[in-house]
Amino acid sequence: MGHTYPGATVPFGSIQLSPETDTLSYVKDGKYNPDVYKYCAGYQYSDKTIVGFSHTHFSGTGHSDLGDFLIMPTTGKLQLNPGTADNPESGYRSAFSHKNEVAEANYYKVKLDDDNIIAELTTSPRVGFHQYTFPASDQAHIILDLISGIYNYPDKDVWTFVRVVNDTLVTGYRQTSGWARTRTVYFAMTFSKPFISYGDENYDAKQVYKGFWGKWDQTKNFPALADRKIRMYFNFKTQEGEKIKIKFALSPVSQENALNNLRSEIPHWDFDKVKKDGQQQWNKELSKIEVTTLNEGDKVSFYTAMYHAFINPTIYMDLNREYKGIDQNIHKAENFTNYTTFSLWDTHRALHPLFNILQPDRNTDMVSSMLAHYDQSALKMLPIWSTYANETWCMSGYHSVSVIADAIIKGVYTGNAEAALDACVTTAKHRSYEGIGEYMDKGFVSSDSNRNSVSNTLEYAYDDWCIAQLAKKLNKTDIYNEFIKRSENWKNVYDPKIGFMRPRLGNGSFRKDFDVLTTNGQGFIEGNAWNYSLYVPHNPEELISLMGGKKKFEVRLDSLFTMHLPDKFFAETEDITREGIIGNYVHGNEPAHHAAYLYDYTDAPWKTQYWVRYILNKMYKPTSDGLGGNDDCGQMSAWYIFSELGFYPVAPGSLNYELGSPGIVSAKMNLENGKTFTVNTKNQGEKNVYVQKVLLNGKQLNRNYITHSEIMNGGTLEFYMSAQPPKK
Amino acid sequence: MGHTYPGATVPFGSIQLSPETDTLSYVKDGKYNPDVYKYCAGYQYSDKTIVGFSHTHFSGTGHSDLGDFLIMPTTGKLQLNPGTADNPESGYRSAFSHKNEVAEANYYKVKLDDDNIIAELTTSPRVGFHQYTFPASDQAHIILDLISGIYNYPDKDVWTFVRVVNDTLVTGYRQTSGWARTRTVYFAMTFSKPFISYGDENYDAKQVYKGFWGKWDQTKNFPALADRKIRMYFNFKTQEGEKIKIKFALSPVSQENALNNLRSEIPHWDFDKVKKDGQQQWNKELSKIEVTTLNEGDKVSFYTAMYHAFINPTIYMDLNREYKGIDQNIHKAENFTNYTTFSLWDTHRALHPLFNILQPDRNTDMVSSMLAHYDQSALKMLPIWSTYANETWCMSGYHSVSVIADAIIKGVYTGNAEAALDACVTTAKHRSYEGIGEYMDKGFVSSDSNRNSVSNTLEYAYDDWCIAQLAKKLNKTDIYNEFIKRSENWKNVYDPKIGFMRPRLGNGSFRKDFDVLTTNGQGFIEGNAWNYSLYVPHNPEELISLMGGKKKFEVRLDSLFTMHLPDKFFAETEDITREGIIGNYVHGNEPAHHAAYLYDYTDAPWKTQYWVRYILNKMYKPTSDGLGGNDDCGQMSAWYIFSELGFYPVAPGSLNYELGSPGIVSAKMNLENGKTFTVNTKNQGEKNVYVQKVLLNGKQLNRNYITHSEIMNGGTLEFYMSAQPPKK
Repeated sequence: MGHTYPGATVPFGSIQLSPETDTLSYVKDGKYNPDVYKYCAGYQYSDKTIVGFSHTHFSGTGHSDLGDFLIMPTTGKLQLNPGTADNPESGYRSAFSHKNEVAEANYYKVKLDDDNIIAELTTSPRVGFHQYTFPASDQAHIILDLISGIYNYPDKDVWTFVRVVNDTLVTGYRQTSGWARTRTVYFAMTFSKPFISYGDENYDAKQVYKGFWGKWDQTKNFPALADRKIRMYFNFKTQEGEKIKIKFALSPVSQENALNNLRSEIPHWDFDKVKKDGQQQWNKELSKIEVTTLNEGDKVSFYTAMYHAFINPTIYMDLNREYKGIDQNIHKAENFTNYTTFSLWDTHRALHPLFNILQPDRNTDMVSSMLAHYDQSALKMLPIWSTYANETWCMSGYHSVSVIADAIIKGVYTGNAEAALDACVTTAKHRSYEGIGEYMDKGFVSSDSNRNSVSNTLEYAYDDWCIAQLAKKLNKTDIYNEFIKRSENWKNVYDPKIGFMRPRLGNGSFRKDFDVLTTNGQGFIEGNAWNYSLYVPHNPEELISLMGGKKKFEVRLDSLFTMHLPDKFFAETEDITREGIIGNYVHGNEPAHHAAYLYDYTDAPWKTQYWVRYILNKMYKPTSDGLGGNDDCGQMSAWYIFSELGFYPVAPGSLNYELGSPGIVSAKMNLENGKTFTVNTKNQGEKNVYVQKVLLNGKQLNRNYITHSEIMNGGTLEFYMSAQPPKK
Repeated sequence: MGHTYPGATVPFGSIQLSPETDTLSYVKDGKYNPDVYKYCAGYQYSDKTIVGFSHTHFSGTGHSDLGDFLIMPTTGKLQLNPGTADNPESGYRSAFSHKNEVAEANYYKVKLDDDNIIAELTTSPRVGFHQYTFPASDQAHIILDLISGIYNYPDKDVWTFVRVVNDTLVTGYRQTSGWARTRTVYFAMTFSKPFISYGDENYDAKQVYKGFWGKWDQTKNFPALADRKIRMYFNFKTQEGEKIKIKFALSPVSQENALNNLRSEIPHWDFDKVKKDGQQQWNKELSKIEVTTLNEGDKVSFYTAMYHAFINPTIYMDLNREYKGIDQNIHKAENFTNYTTFSLWDTHRALHPLFNILQPDRNTDMVSSMLAHYDQSALKMLPIWSTYANETWCMSGYHSVSVIADAIIKGVYTGNAEAALDACVTTAKHRSYEGIGEYMDKGFVSSDSNRNSVSNTLEYAYDDWCIAQLAKKLNKTDIYNEFIKRSENWKNVYDPKIGFMRPRLGNGSFRKDFDVLTTNGQGFIEGNAWNYSLYVPHNPEELISLMGGKKKFEVRLDSLFTMHLPDKFFAETEDITREGIIGNYVHGNEPAHHAAYLYDYTDAPWKTQYWVRYILNKMYKPTSDGLGGNDDCGQMSAWYIFSELGFYPVAPGSLNYELGSPGIVSAKMNLENGKTFTVNTKNQGEKNVYVQKVLLNGKQLNRNYITHSEIMNGGTLEFYMSAQPPKK
């Protein structure tokens, strides 16, 4: 349920070339098909068949789209339908075994059992490179399924256009309306060997007007196709062991740009070179932290987390720097690299803070991308959950402001900070969005008017604090005063009578019908009142005080981590599996990701150490079912990396990182500024989860946190570990 | 049934801003709706209501599309449905009277009776300019119907995207699949006065996935719309007599280009200036021939024909020279102006030859546009019937080659003639198109394999002769020999036993089941065997010889023009009205457009004179029902202009024009090369249709034709008219 994919990609690459083990429709019998959820990234380890290999995948989302341009090699009788998992021979899909599967960074290999074909995949940033080793066959086929996709809605296919330029080159585009409402992906596809013939079938039941097109047989060797639902095939003859290679480039802008991407990024047919180039890029990125660990499993987990953290957001720009904006216009990214897929509700917490340390150049470009989105948005809104020149409006809050404020406050983004502040303020004052007007008027979003009223109120309050911090840095006192006041709005949804955050009605009274364990329909999203009541990352001290002081708060956290939840909780709560929960603490979703670190604000910081190590061990394993929930575009992995290193950004926008308990033996962080920051442990062990003392550059720390500049200036952080809680 | 429109356009303008008097669906009760045919250009004179004003219209086609971006001003209760013709108050449409209607070149005005609004329209090449004079109203609306269109198929709407940039500016695009299969039109729309509020309704029954979009009320003041079927409205308050003006620009490329077109072409709000500028352009074009006529009606008919001849093809290129190609890529027309809407089966006959005399610069650009189409075509085919970056494959033959050969042979197109010849040859050898392979192998297209086998064989033979003439000019002997041989293939479908062109089966035998009067299902398109049997424009001499010699041929032509047709003929034949027929001669369709001139090849050229004048009078009248058939993008009008001048290009590709009988009293042609060619008549009169002698530059002509260079060198052609046939 990590919803990651095993296929090939380079760091932050535009192409994610990976197998689909099923391609279900989003709708079954007229309703949402719950089985589709498993296929957010196209791949489920328990499946026995592979449908084909497509070029775009989200990593770790809980909702989905993409899966563009599915390719499948087959031999024998031509079959253009995918067939069923139970009977793969009924279609072009094939059975496979994990024993014949290899997944490396930027490389995937599998044997397709039905036709005894070896499939290998690798990529450059904008080009997918397929290598299929065929048996001898007079009827070898490459299927190009232009309908197949992830989360297929019945009318998802908007338009498809294909040009067969010559016997090795095909270009075109695919236009869909799914999670991304208005989306076009252009492609250019080239074969290492000329096809003998080709054809297609049109699966649109309500076909468009044909007129004089009936003059042509468009099903065979017809190079100018356009309709809603098209599948194509290309025919070859193969020798035993012959390799047919395909380079498949994408562009958000045009067929020509796709072709230029193709020819410029991979001007040759050397599969191994492309694989190696990508792996070198991965080695460069992954070696930004060099760790020693207690065991090999921990090392695998660590670099798996690094890998997953460096997949999203993805580059969304052609080699000539052109990209499509949310205004559906073509723009040129003159001074930055444009990125897309901002799962900000998730990633503002730890992933972008991690980028501020390890990927400051990229995070600067991501901030630039978010600001370009704002400039191009008819609504004048920063991204909420944006992807492929679209806004999905997914989840609560307006967390772009956290990412932007954090990057500016930490000195990472050095562009026009005043323009950035303007964008944050305008977004935060968009009265017609998600109860913001009411929030501005009353200090809270009411549950009469908004489904996620408490989540929104709490998250707006945190985001407003970020805006205040940014305003302070820019000496904008008025804005600081306005937003620091708004940042206290979390108090307006706290019900001191029950000690929980609680939905309020428009008339100000707390909602009567309320269950602190339930999420849905109560004003929360992906977290119940137990989890969300802790969500004041910018002011834990006051939260603790309101909740009765440090001791009471410590006990409350203890309960969170240890209570037993009734079964109905799992049935009712979306996007949660039992594996993602510890007690009532939901690690598989994000709202309480900082919770374990809150013990640092009580008199029992050793409990932070205990629970952080517990979560690290329980929720991240070097196995095929190793993640305790959707990776959420790298947020889960970023939590892991920080926590393994021994510190965590409880409130991005602050310069502080709360200390926890490192899981690694040692870690050397190679920073872009040329400096290194090293985390060392003494007496590290699986049971030695408690920290007796911490030295920063040889001097003992008398605080629970380190600061951003202490990391970025380079140095050494040394944790002395013990099996005994220090209890102080 | 002329299928012309009364609205505003400049010569060859991209915008045709004109009222729709109805907008029927192409499908009724699951079948083709025959009523839709009347609305090819959106307007029927007998209708009593106007639905609105849209920006794109074909002029005189027999099949249709377009009608993009329908605008309608209303007051009072908002109505977003068009309503019915019987009860216009049931929707946004309005009753109107012709007495309140004014149609001038580049100007249209009408009073909308329902709400007492005066509508005025004018244009620049890429911008439609609306001016609506309202009564006092607190509820004045401008409707923007993004669904409305001409020839609406049930699934014609592919996608619509709208951005409300501010309270006077809206941009977006509309994507359709109709006669043009893959078509997107971008727009930018600006109001002279800010709207107070706006909204929309979504008419897609099967709406696309909405996800988190439910957070927004997208029906009111929501600036980022996208879906399949959208109608919008904009609200104003108006004073009595207040004018709300709208500038509406189109682009084939992007919203930005549309906005640039808008701002660059009309940077002001002076409606009268735009109207006047366009009328000056029309005066310039129309005064390329200055005529005196026997009466005012003839003058109106003549300049009406000039007007209709100078509408199509239309400019298809933004001000920055960008356009969309048939490959759906964006191209820049560096050295030419790109044109679209090539109704070549019609227009190769007389319209493009007319352009070679009156519009050589534009015709050069049209040839360049056709060659660019070829270069960008995946099929490597010159246009057949192309429009808006699409090929419709409408009608028979490959008549681009006639236009190209004619323009090169006449010295008009001076680009790369060898590349042009290559394109012609490649198109003519595309074996899988419309029986070309069989035609190359057997010398004819068989009726087993092709519905329009005889039409295609005859038209290919003529087109092949054009290629041969072009090859001869370029000294390509091999190509000349090959194609001059192919140009004789018309003989292969001539059945000497019955003296008619007749479909042949694949085995070579003539089809038994055959009726010389019927068109449909017999191997002909838009012309029966009587008409098509004359279609050997490049070799009338040999046709006449095969048909038994001059006298027999003369009698045959007499029969054609005078025979009485049974009623069933009209019921069975498409695209024909009784008004378009003289005897069995179908002037409303094109295949026999040269027929009246064929008497010139017999001993009775005075019958050419008689019938040409007869057709001029019968088929062209200065009234609302003045055209004897669809104007066919200017071909009918070009026939009129040539024939009024006294000569006609029987075989484009030849340098000769056959002489007929001029209808004008005198005509001065102002040529682009600065020279003038004048046609004068002596003793002209309505009954003086016969030509006694002809002087060219004062010297009597001893032939039935004049040559292209005689015209282009300037000079005077003088016809001596008489009421008595010269009979020699």
